Amino acid sequence: MEPVETRVTTDWDAKMAGRTAGMTGSIIRELLKLTDRPDIISFGGGMPAAELFPVREFREACEYVLTTNGGKALQYGASEGYTPLREYLSEKMQKYGVPAVVNNVIITNGSQQALDLIGRIFLDKGDIVVTERPTYLGALQAWRAYEADFASVPMDDDGMCVDQLEDVLKTHQRKVKFIYVLPNFHNPAGTTLPLDRRMELVRIAAKYGVPIIEDDPYGELRFEGEDITPIETLHKENVIYLSTFSKTLAPGVRLGWITGPEKIVSKIVLAKQGADLHTGTLVQWVAYDICSRGLLRNHVKLVREAYHERRDAMLQAMDEYFPSGVTWTRPQGGLFLWVRLPEGINTTTFMKTALEQKVAFVPGAPFYPDESGTNAMRLNFSYCRPEVIREGIQRLGRAIMQEFG
Amino acid sequence: MEPVETRVTTDWDAKMAGRTAGMTGSIIRELLKLTDRPDIISFGGGMPAAELFPVREFREACEYVLTTNGGKALQYGASEGYTPLREYLSEKMQKYGVPAVVNNVIITNGSQQALDLIGRIFLDKGDIVVTERPTYLGALQAWRAYEADFASVPMDDDGMCVDQLEDVLKTHQRKVKFIYVLPNFHNPAGTTLPLDRRMELVRIAAKYGVPIIEDDPYGELRFEGEDITPIETLHKENVIYLSTFSKTLAPGVRLGWITGPEKIVSKIVLAKQGADLHTGTLVQWVAYDICSRGLLRNHVKLVREAYHERRDAMLQAMDEYFPSGVTWTRPQGGLFLWVRLPEGINTTTFMKTALEQKVAFVPGAPFYPDESGTNAMRLNFSYCRPEVIREGIQRLGRAIMQEFG
Repeated sequence: MEPVETRVTTDWDAKMAGRTAGMTGSIIRELLKLTDRPDIISFGGGMPAAELFPVREFREACEYVLTTNGGKALQYGASEGYTPLREYLSEKMQKYGVPAVVNNVIITNGSQQALDLIGRIFLDKGDIVVTERPTYLGALQAWRAYEADFASVPMDDDGMCVDQLEDVLKTHQRKVKFIYVLPNFHNPAGTTLPLDRRMELVRIAAKYGVPIIEDDPYGELRFEGEDITPIETLHKENVIYLSTFSKTLAPGVRLGWITGPEKIVSKIVLAKQGADLHTGTLVQWVAYDICSRGLLRNHVKLVREAYHERRDAMLQAMDEYFPSGVTWTRPQGGLFLWVRLPEGINTTTFMKTALEQKVAFVPGAPFYPDESGTNAMRLNFSYCRPEVIREGIQRLGRAIMQEFG
Repeated sequence: MEPVETRVTTDWDAKMAGRTAGMTGSIIRELLKLTDRPDIISFGGGMPAAELFPVREFREACEYVLTTNGGKALQYGASEGYTPLREYLSEKMQKYGVPAVVNNVIITNGSQQALDLIGRIFLDKGDIVVTERPTYLGALQAWRAYEADFASVPMDDDGMCVDQLEDVLKTHQRKVKFIYVLPNFHNPAGTTLPLDRRMELVRIAAKYGVPIIEDDPYGELRFEGEDITPIETLHKENVIYLSTFSKTLAPGVRLGWITGPEKIVSKIVLAKQGADLHTGTLVQWVAYDICSRGLLRNHVKLVREAYHERRDAMLQAMDEYFPSGVTWTRPQGGLFLWVRLPEGINTTTFMKTALEQKVAFVPGAPFYPDESGTNAMRLNFSYCRPEVIREGIQRLGRAIMQEFG
């Protein structure tokens, strides 16, 4: 069929929403494209170690689910998620001391969607989200789509400086819609918020009537020290908790979840209906099969041990190869640590020197709502094997010394 | 850990975004819950026939993908989607006469997400979307989340009355962001837009510089008559085309796609990054495996034949059991037909009478942006077997006569 001859061409730019102009790609994802080259050692992504994925368990679960329940596992499902998986997660939350029942849980398409749905129900243009500084850049990206503004609280080696939170809340008052915090093995900072700060955070948030969004993708990946109770346990009426199977099972199934007050979860369910109807049925059945057989716990133990070894390899190599004047966090778990170069070094431009040395990282600026933090960088230690980490840190040390030159 | 004692409780309602107040559940999904009872025959949902799902093909594909590429299929993926699947789809579109390449295609988490992402990049509060009247209620739900308003064009048995489109565009002028149309086997109306109307639609849209969103989930399910060229073929610079694997393969994998001008697709990719990072990797690899083996074509043939038989069973039973004064569309494909009862009968309240007769449908009102169309109902003919359809239509006829009574 020949195209219809037409005179006028649409001015697409004029048709775009206000939010669209501000949509920019994640610098991480753009950099990742550069670092696909096999000769480059990348500490840039946030990817789990693919060689540890429980592939056999997935194969068996797919076979079992499709053989026994193919018709249901391939059909439309509920926007809330697959009930047995929600029940499993509510029981898991109960073990953490969070008194969740099935109606407190919704399954999302990865925890990025959880961030999006939270933005969707809470944020009008010009509303303020209070974050840590630095914070997870995927959250900034999700909430910029709702044209929110950000106010931030600095961090030290124990996470958010909660003693500075009250000033921020006082300044912005009722425009603040929620406080966003990553209490365990922070992305990007690698820090963990101690119990006393969690309790103080809960008190201040309640005093100002501001809800807390607790993002906990890495909580199960603790290498050393004792687990600290989730913030949700301390004030369940005022906290919305997010987590994901991406770091424990596999990210390619896109399974995250939210727990929170039933009234809020039911609003999120409505938002999810409009956003994508529901999360994949097959992957939920498969994940539930793996979890209900008790295979997840053993697998997480394996992942924890491997990442522990990799973190140690990174810390040891940094002690050895980084010049003085460079400092870094020593995370007790998770996937990331945070490096500070001397003031005045811009890690975004330093990236070029590092790539010449065939090593990559993520520069610090995009993790700051205000793009400050230019002398910092995030390193991932979950993806590469220990010997590769060692080699990569040696290269990075060389690049830093070259930059100091 | 004991909860922290706090004084103030958050006023959650005050924290909600403006859009959230207007978020209401899909009446279809609420009704579906009522009709879960096994004694009720439901023409209410839009579900494919589960007994036709290609379960064996899925089992084999899962086994093959996980055995050969488990590490990649379970890892994070690109926001655009899995490249071989995008290539497959661009070739498929080429066969329809749409000159798509891989950069014109993005994979979405079902076509509901495609609707959401289109809303996200185009719609500011108060913008106008032009739809058919009735139209797909999932689209209304998606775009209400962006606080859009709707203007609508009536339909007859050949779909949108395109001769009335120009008046609507003239009235709303530059506030119109796009025209939304379901050209094949319309949901809910069951109508198909003839070629001359498609060409006229393209001319009018171009004249006013307004893009067209062509939603085509059912195009491959034609039972009779000749395929009509997609609107995108007629003016590819001005049309964004959506489709899905939900009706051909299975909805539980949540795989849809968008094709359109590269510039627009790249904006949608950015929106998708913030929304949920990417669509599930495993399901994309599995769907690609099934498609690349040529199994989809045979499967679609099977589905088409089964639904053809079911449509015939429904039409025949309606001829037999419905009283005069009731009219309905005779779709050439798809999953739905549209019934009009005499004026004055409200199908939402009639639902109660029908449920007493143990048969369910979806009332017409929610398919109208302005909730008019109260005497209409949508019937699905894909889900139930022919003998069940016959029994259900007999019950519905009985209920209608009772209501007339």
